[in-house]
Amino acid sequence: MNGKRIGQQTIELPSRPALCGSAAFVGRKEGEGPLGHCFDQVAKDEMYGQESFELAERQLYLDAIAAAVQKGRERMEDIQFLLGGDLLNQIITASFSARDLGIPFIGLYGACSTMSESLCLAGMLLDGGHARQVICAASSHFCTAERQYRYPLEFGSQRPPTAQWTVTGAGATLLCAEPKVPPLARMERVCMGRVVDLGIADANNMGAAMAPAAADTLLSLFRDTQTGPEDYDAIVTGDLGQVGHDLLMQLMREQRLPLMDERYHDCGLMIFDREKQDVHAGGSGCGCSASVLNGYFLPKLQTGELGRIIFMATGALMSTTSSQQGETIPGVAHAVVLESPQGGKSK
Amino acid sequence: MNGKRIGQQTIELPSRPALCGSAAFVGRKEGEGPLGHCFDQVAKDEMYGQESFELAERQLYLDAIAAAVQKGRERMEDIQFLLGGDLLNQIITASFSARDLGIPFIGLYGACSTMSESLCLAGMLLDGGHARQVICAASSHFCTAERQYRYPLEFGSQRPPTAQWTVTGAGATLLCAEPKVPPLARMERVCMGRVVDLGIADANNMGAAMAPAAADTLLSLFRDTQTGPEDYDAIVTGDLGQVGHDLLMQLMREQRLPLMDERYHDCGLMIFDREKQDVHAGGSGCGCSASVLNGYFLPKLQTGELGRIIFMATGALMSTTSSQQGETIPGVAHAVVLESPQGGKSK
Repeated sequence: MNGKRIGQQTIELPSRPALCGSAAFVGRKEGEGPLGHCFDQVAKDEMYGQESFELAERQLYLDAIAAAVQKGRERMEDIQFLLGGDLLNQIITASFSARDLGIPFIGLYGACSTMSESLCLAGMLLDGGHARQVICAASSHFCTAERQYRYPLEFGSQRPPTAQWTVTGAGATLLCAEPKVPPLARMERVCMGRVVDLGIADANNMGAAMAPAAADTLLSLFRDTQTGPEDYDAIVTGDLGQVGHDLLMQLMREQRLPLMDERYHDCGLMIFDREKQDVHAGGSGCGCSASVLNGYFLPKLQTGELGRIIFMATGALMSTTSSQQGETIPGVAHAVVLESPQGGKSK
Repeated sequence: MNGKRIGQQTIELPSRPALCGSAAFVGRKEGEGPLGHCFDQVAKDEMYGQESFELAERQLYLDAIAAAVQKGRERMEDIQFLLGGDLLNQIITASFSARDLGIPFIGLYGACSTMSESLCLAGMLLDGGHARQVICAASSHFCTAERQYRYPLEFGSQRPPTAQWTVTGAGATLLCAEPKVPPLARMERVCMGRVVDLGIADANNMGAAMAPAAADTLLSLFRDTQTGPEDYDAIVTGDLGQVGHDLLMQLMREQRLPLMDERYHDCGLMIFDREKQDVHAGGSGCGCSASVLNGYFLPKLQTGELGRIIFMATGALMSTTSSQQGETIPGVAHAVVLESPQGGKSK
């Protein structure tokens, strides 16, 4: 057997699956943010040349996948699975994209944790020899998410300071058993998260709902691997935003495994300029971590600027129905440890 | 590497992962149907002792999982993942169940194909050595599905003859690397499906929307493995209902691989008595195939009454939004080949 389980939740991948292509296609607001120059393409507006927001999101998704596959010098017809999801009911962005691509489809729902959920599964399937070329993808769109989860945009509802701004964007990563290009990164291990709920019921405060799950997975990974924050050049969470970021820092301090400011990054805080872009607590949506991982972090692993990182996207697993029925918001976080092909040791 | 890919979509599992526990918990109407005696428990009413339909579905889900784990003589805390999903927006049945179980959660969305999607992934993860004990589960509930996908029950809308009746039920299967009980069945191979859409737009005719995907996956499996319908004691589809069943028969006849009436079964046609139970074209929902597989077919594999079967659940991947926007309905079907521990050869 290939995969070596090294603890309760962490799984070692001895073959170190290779990430061979990555792409991030984002909306205009994201293009105007601090990471604008990192993305493959920035849409001119939220319609992205389509007739509906949903079609725009789908086109971003398809374009990110096509670019990632092309960068890895693979042909679409040789891709074995799409492992993907998004935030829309019945993950229609991923499902309809899979229809257009014509490749087998493994539909995932992990809310904003989808990018790391898909990477974890892809890593294990490659490591086990059950897949050779796999594409992972996740997306979100501010306008499709707002009208599904909150209010029609035309309603102009006020947002509290804890609210986050759903990122319009799609990210895709190609994994290959036999890379045709120098890999961007290799996957060392994965840590699948438990669902944790400490009782936050405010759907405008997702960061607080997700932070305990992030802490739970991070602590499991550290415990299972006997590593600590100092063993990684970067620890990257998906979209905790300012509230969740601060809570995770606090939770880790309490566990005597404090995260260092200069090495802990939250994609939701990186993608927008909170001073200038009016996004309250930061960015969110599964397109947030998907586009920041693929546009910003994977290239830095490729060059060796980063040696070894934890990428851990977090998801809030509620629905409008569960919230209306008075349920609190369960969170989940899945983590992958990625190494630079230039050497995976922390500097 | 372990898994041997034997064709474009089919993956051989040399270690033959063992299915070690199964359970099916269903609603009252399902208990009154022809398979009523096969299920672990039949709810007295659609509330199942809970305060909402959603909570009832969740309790069925949790109870099915607990029973399957217990039958396999495993402890819940030793289960490595829940691979699960359901039909509700943001798969809240599975997500909130994972919260209660406290085990790592891999959320899936494959509409009514979820049971076979989860089994395919579980089989590959066990075969690769990345998992040792995994629980797969899927559910649906007539009342939660109706109000989410169609109309409030109180509205009393008419149903056309092609419509199907969403099954209230949950099914769970435990897979173990080191079985503590004699296995129910072993998994020989999996075939992940592509998303196929031949242009059906009628959300009251899911069978027709899903039949082409079922044919596509079945033909891929036959082509990849150089087998045909005669090599299996049973070919089981999830919930095509009468319309989809007849269409699949026709599509396979056209491909000169006709399915034999006595060996081709659709869970949607088995679970209800269409003459007496007023379910129009048959049962549907991911709880349909999940409960029929776990309640009816796995026990028959265990005794050797069936030697080798294809279990292929099918899903219709639309949402209310996609339908309102004029999209047609894409379908998907994932297949697993299961063998009896008494000998996997077709009789």
